[in-house]
Amino acid sequence: MKAEIIAVGTEILLGQVVNTNATFISEELADLGIEVYYHSVVGDNPERLESLLKTADNRSDLVVLCGGLGPTTDDLTKDVVAKYVGQNLVEDVAGRKELDLFFTRAKRKMTSNNLRQVLVFEDGIALPNETGLAIGIFYQSSTTAFLLLPGPPSELRPMFLHHGKALLTEKFPQADKLISRVLRFYGIGESQLVTQLADLIEEQTNPTIAPYAKPNEVTLRLTAKVQDEISGIKLLDKTESAILEEVGEYFYGYGEENSLEAVVVKLLQEKKCRVTAAESLTAGQFQATLANVSGASAIFAGGFVTYAKEQKEQLLQIDPALLDEYGVVSEECAKAMAQNARTIVGADYALSFTGVAGPTELEGQPVGTVWIGLASETEVKAYLYHFTRNRSYVRHSAVMAGLDLLRRTLLAK
Amino acid sequence: MKAEIIAVGTEILLGQVVNTNATFISEELADLGIEVYYHSVVGDNPERLESLLKTADNRSDLVVLCGGLGPTTDDLTKDVVAKYVGQNLVEDVAGRKELDLFFTRAKRKMTSNNLRQVLVFEDGIALPNETGLAIGIFYQSSTTAFLLLPGPPSELRPMFLHHGKALLTEKFPQADKLISRVLRFYGIGESQLVTQLADLIEEQTNPTIAPYAKPNEVTLRLTAKVQDEISGIKLLDKTESAILEEVGEYFYGYGEENSLEAVVVKLLQEKKCRVTAAESLTAGQFQATLANVSGASAIFAGGFVTYAKEQKEQLLQIDPALLDEYGVVSEECAKAMAQNARTIVGADYALSFTGVAGPTELEGQPVGTVWIGLASETEVKAYLYHFTRNRSYVRHSAVMAGLDLLRRTLLAK
Repeated sequence: MKAEIIAVGTEILLGQVVNTNATFISEELADLGIEVYYHSVVGDNPERLESLLKTADNRSDLVVLCGGLGPTTDDLTKDVVAKYVGQNLVEDVAGRKELDLFFTRAKRKMTSNNLRQVLVFEDGIALPNETGLAIGIFYQSSTTAFLLLPGPPSELRPMFLHHGKALLTEKFPQADKLISRVLRFYGIGESQLVTQLADLIEEQTNPTIAPYAKPNEVTLRLTAKVQDEISGIKLLDKTESAILEEVGEYFYGYGEENSLEAVVVKLLQEKKCRVTAAESLTAGQFQATLANVSGASAIFAGGFVTYAKEQKEQLLQIDPALLDEYGVVSEECAKAMAQNARTIVGADYALSFTGVAGPTELEGQPVGTVWIGLASETEVKAYLYHFTRNRSYVRHSAVMAGLDLLRRTLLAK
Repeated sequence: MKAEIIAVGTEILLGQVVNTNATFISEELADLGIEVYYHSVVGDNPERLESLLKTADNRSDLVVLCGGLGPTTDDLTKDVVAKYVGQNLVEDVAGRKELDLFFTRAKRKMTSNNLRQVLVFEDGIALPNETGLAIGIFYQSSTTAFLLLPGPPSELRPMFLHHGKALLTEKFPQADKLISRVLRFYGIGESQLVTQLADLIEEQTNPTIAPYAKPNEVTLRLTAKVQDEISGIKLLDKTESAILEEVGEYFYGYGEENSLEAVVVKLLQEKKCRVTAAESLTAGQFQATLANVSGASAIFAGGFVTYAKEQKEQLLQIDPALLDEYGVVSEECAKAMAQNARTIVGADYALSFTGVAGPTELEGQPVGTVWIGLASETEVKAYLYHFTRNRSYVRHSAVMAGLDLLRRTLLAK
């Protein structure tokens, strides 16, 4: 099974957009046991796209096209492919219903070009778009399968994960299955993780171990090539044990769509504990991150953003003398913020964040210096961190460190 | 002048590495006035690379190849291209000197495969590698120019910037430069924007107008092809005026790296106004977004996250009777939140956010229903929105709507 990926969009050829869709689809197809032989990018130009389609049709069994399904005239992927394979375009009933609903809810008038987004090949299969309006299309010609996906990653990813993947698995069952498992780590860098697991990664061929670095975390994808699921799970279990023996202290959870905040919210729910926060440099980002998780309201009632010194005094009732003596970037300030936030809101735990996001230093302390306080019924402690890179990375690092601190505290409870 | 970019590397086809080299080279070539028509990626496979080279040679004047210049056997780009254009490989004297120096300094014995890295085409030009060992190569055949660059971005970028760029400018002086400008819009969908500008976009060839949708905003990139910068700016100004005549009410700023929050923070600084917020469904995201902008501390001291009803009562001192009578998803609640937050913190403006993020409805109101309150010294108003899609999109939409509300209020001041 040979596959290739064609991204359509002049903005990619101008260097304005990185072709991360090809990366994502490649990773997903590898999971399905489908090998990708080529990526191509072509601009919004019908002749060049058609010529590329012809080449792809001749050399591949599956052609995945990304982009060019939107409402405007430069969105031409659907028209060009339809013409190339000789298919008429018809309206997809379910897609049209969603489109109408969208404009009714948004109380906006629908312009007629939007209808282009819900056209499907007459013998094709429409893929619903859960996060946008343009439907996807799967079509099997006598020689080649075509999968058309929307360009925005926020639409392409859920469409592929929730619809495309199952469809390809059904249409192209591979003798060898790839079964994979994602392990998530916080608190260890990619190079360190790979160094500690070097022997394992080199010797190991089934399952393979692929590290992947994300901002402030690392995931390992274990992929076993097997004929049945049970032997796959056994292989994965064995490798996972060997990995966790080396770096288990940094492991926090499983799964591609998992996150540190999801693990923390679940733990809080299980332990029936409530949390609050007082945030200075993170300015609400810790609380907003908790509330990313649906069901957060069971464990989080509210908290404080105390960006300036005056609001640490006013909203959190911290003694101005303490702030004058130790400064706001201090253990004492972090502890007072956490303790007072916990008391005022009446939560089981309170986190506090105070430090230097940058770009310039504060109270003589360098960018990246962050104190995180954690107050519980029995004690209050503060922890000092030195984060690196830019303002936004320092703030994200602080939020992740706070989540991990809370996770470890809850696990030790 | 037609160019294309070929990246060589199986790791890209497996989705382990993102092809950022193509993005970088595209941007740089656009700057030089050289148009890129295709990107391709092929694995470490000589037959497939050769077939791609043939296609590229036929359709392009310049082919930039990235990757596969290293010392190992799967680094095959140089051999395949040399064979394709019929060139012998000879040692580059300067490259060899650097290579020897490297191993002498590192006190390591050089393995013989390293010599492959300093081979150049007999009629080619070697490009020095300031941050690695593999030299680059420029070669002009009777029809096509080939530029071979190393794969690691840390080597490719300096090599292109310090050597490749000057070489291409000298070999291919372009009469025309590309000058571009990005206009940013909030509050209008891509399809609506394009409909309103349909005539302009269709008729306009210089500058071209390219729309691009991002979450909750749309940008238009105007690109003029000109011989000098002054006439380019004139062309861009003229087209910009025509665009703003149609959709100027949604325009909020210029530039690829600009944002609604940056514009709002700048306006607040200019007007010497301070803002606070009380956030329910957004749970701190509005305040964290403001604090994305460096310098936010001048206009933002702090605020509230009041996720649960009890914290609206406690932290914001809202009368429980009001919440019981109208509910938390109500105009009255949004107004009380904004008004009380403004009074408590002592800011010039206060925003409030209350609504239904989902996944389930609240107080009988559907997911996406959001009230945003805005309190100033003279008045307090609340605005009703119906956002769509998922939890995270509803919350992001609310933050963006709040920013725009504040922006318009400040502009009207």
